[in-house]
Amino acid sequence: MQIVDWDMLDGQGRAQALARPAAVSDEKVRVAVSGILEAVRTGGDAAVLGFTEKFDGVRPVPYRISRKDMQAAWDALPQRDKRALQTAIDNVSAFHAAQKPPTIEVETMSGVLCRREVRPLSRVGLYVPGGTAPLVSTLIMLAVPAKIAGVGERIVVTPPSEDGQINRFILAAASRCEVTDMFAVGGAQAIAALGFGTETIAKCDKIFGPGNAYVAEAKSQMAARPGGLALDLPAGPSEVMVLADDSADSEFVAADLLSQAEHDKAAQVMCMCTSRALAEAIKAATLRQLADLPRRQIAQASLDHARLIVAARADMADIVNDYAPEHLIVQLERPDAIVPDITNAGSIFIGPWTPEAVGDYASGTNHTLPTDGAARAWSGLTLDSFLKYISVQKLSRAGLEVLGPTVERLADMEGLDAHRRAVSCRLAEGNS
Amino acid sequence: MQIVDWDMLDGQGRAQALARPAAVSDEKVRVAVSGILEAVRTGGDAAVLGFTEKFDGVRPVPYRISRKDMQAAWDALPQRDKRALQTAIDNVSAFHAAQKPPTIEVETMSGVLCRREVRPLSRVGLYVPGGTAPLVSTLIMLAVPAKIAGVGERIVVTPPSEDGQINRFILAAASRCEVTDMFAVGGAQAIAALGFGTETIAKCDKIFGPGNAYVAEAKSQMAARPGGLALDLPAGPSEVMVLADDSADSEFVAADLLSQAEHDKAAQVMCMCTSRALAEAIKAATLRQLADLPRRQIAQASLDHARLIVAARADMADIVNDYAPEHLIVQLERPDAIVPDITNAGSIFIGPWTPEAVGDYASGTNHTLPTDGAARAWSGLTLDSFLKYISVQKLSRAGLEVLGPTVERLADMEGLDAHRRAVSCRLAEGNS
Repeated sequence: MQIVDWDMLDGQGRAQALARPAAVSDEKVRVAVSGILEAVRTGGDAAVLGFTEKFDGVRPVPYRISRKDMQAAWDALPQRDKRALQTAIDNVSAFHAAQKPPTIEVETMSGVLCRREVRPLSRVGLYVPGGTAPLVSTLIMLAVPAKIAGVGERIVVTPPSEDGQINRFILAAASRCEVTDMFAVGGAQAIAALGFGTETIAKCDKIFGPGNAYVAEAKSQMAARPGGLALDLPAGPSEVMVLADDSADSEFVAADLLSQAEHDKAAQVMCMCTSRALAEAIKAATLRQLADLPRRQIAQASLDHARLIVAARADMADIVNDYAPEHLIVQLERPDAIVPDITNAGSIFIGPWTPEAVGDYASGTNHTLPTDGAARAWSGLTLDSFLKYISVQKLSRAGLEVLGPTVERLADMEGLDAHRRAVSCRLAEGNS
Repeated sequence: MQIVDWDMLDGQGRAQALARPAAVSDEKVRVAVSGILEAVRTGGDAAVLGFTEKFDGVRPVPYRISRKDMQAAWDALPQRDKRALQTAIDNVSAFHAAQKPPTIEVETMSGVLCRREVRPLSRVGLYVPGGTAPLVSTLIMLAVPAKIAGVGERIVVTPPSEDGQINRFILAAASRCEVTDMFAVGGAQAIAALGFGTETIAKCDKIFGPGNAYVAEAKSQMAARPGGLALDLPAGPSEVMVLADDSADSEFVAADLLSQAEHDKAAQVMCMCTSRALAEAIKAATLRQLADLPRRQIAQASLDHARLIVAARADMADIVNDYAPEHLIVQLERPDAIVPDITNAGSIFIGPWTPEAVGDYASGTNHTLPTDGAARAWSGLTLDSFLKYISVQKLSRAGLEVLGPTVERLADMEGLDAHRRAVSCRLAEGNS
């Protein structure tokens, strides 16, 4: 964990302090994924199962999960686990249900009616990481908003464990989230199956969910094809930026930094502090808490490139906006005061009692968020990610008489005569 | 114009009737664009101007347009042109202003506050086609919602004409739409300048607007780079599908088909009719109206691959949803009745007095719409395209006491101990 002093840095030093490691474009991954996509496109389920045996070392039993199996997994859970899953589902439901957009209707001129109507996507593919790191929370974060949006078909794919089975918590949550279909398949072959369709897996309109480098590459290649698949968000390693001043409890801050660091060796851990003494205290607390953490090797590797930036409170918002973190934790005095100044961040966690973990799991917000600076232009998942808009317009004859001359004149400016005539021929008839 | 009968076609025949020509992946364009991007990335303005001289044959005078020049172009317009542009701007403003999303706040549990806040993008690049086909309407459709969304910097790029100048209507509209900066540059070099930034053109967060194959390829390559640029929509040739029954005026339908066909040789023109007699009448009217059209060569090339599909009214919605047209014109008896059944379309034009041209220019809806079947998963531009959401959560100590055990249990399910501890260490302190 490197401590740097913002005021001592020149422009280049500041850029370096906020730099993310350059994404390594791995030619080997690109070629391998391209081969997998083509094989699944032409070979269907047989190719999917072949790759599963090759990469996961198992033939999944079963390949297609029945609603009955999901229900049985739920029924078998202890009451305490049911309660935890249900609370998360309820909170995520409540927050996303509040996001339903209305139909918007405006009569822009007399007789000129414009409307924006809402439609759910028809069929989505939801990728849930499994195997050694089964993310039941990811299933909830994807399947709940898809259902609330009214998406008719919600297909989950998730890699099987060594025994060919799906993690029981993922199965149970799938039951409660009412996914409509589920397959024990992961990796690039799962993305290919969702994107092209196979004999048993239906071709999807949009694919959601995180994954390893192969999954990310497969999503990106499928999106780049002509008539390409729509995706949720650009992929990147998870990241947090914590803002702390003397009011912050350095043990809390340390725990938050570690909960990010344990995700992944590539996870980005950043902390901005108002004094060097505070930075030193947070560093010490972090290393102390690290000592007996089960995933300390991963966390240590992430902390090796973590940065503690000593900066004035007045500069913090600008630095945050420049970095555009996925998660922003505010442990400042009067923490709400900085929020209006934050323009670039995925999700903000305010005050000492709001660790990132609450949003990762159960506060109600979505944990699928923009990484790698994408927060400059992207939102995290919201209900809108599962919806689309259709614009509708209807003119009365009187409306066309009012608006027509404008359209005719603009068509002339662009030299598009047939556009003008589509209006003129109607107005001529209207007057005849 | 081929006439086919839906009921006589087998599955393959139907797929063929709705097929779009496969996008030709042009290696030459890919390589050329890749070279241009790299040259602009390292060479800045000098490279941009070099490519402009090479491809447009001029050195733009001036390269950077002043607000004064825009204002002068507006002042010089005849009253009638001012009125037409202002009406379009007013209608587009009214419809997009109505789309402002509210801040959403939900207390999912007692003491667990979740909020979705709205932020405008900071800086967007707006590409407006120019040269021989200056699209003043595109400027309005991009710059008006950007301004209403509150985007701080709205940079327009548009290629210079042969004399090195910008089309006067585009200049005038830029003045009224209050674009904040404008450059006489087009092609892949313009996209590179917006994406990388140069000495005078600021790096943008998201790029909007249509263009030729080089522009589309440049957008796509910029988006694929690590930390890639956000884009408005996937690019593709424009398309229309008209639905007609015996209540339709075949001259109106023909005029609508031609207003699509004159765009581009690759434009897709589709018409569904309830009888072969109607199809024949529409075809005859189209060929008759084509005869004296200034852009008849382009329109003829597009009509060569146009299709008239004879289908029952009851089948039309399914066929539309399968094709997912950019523009859908409904000239049926009781035209509103079919709208709820349409799930995949960019924009719908209802009834005899609503030609596509009104939406292209001035009804108020946005003319930037999903093509090439993208309407299955994408919306056209709405105000949201210029906004993003930040989720915010704030827990009180009591809130964390209520929600904490859920988070701890879910973290255990995923084997993420540091996530659990970020809650536990707070609850311990809360209880001490």
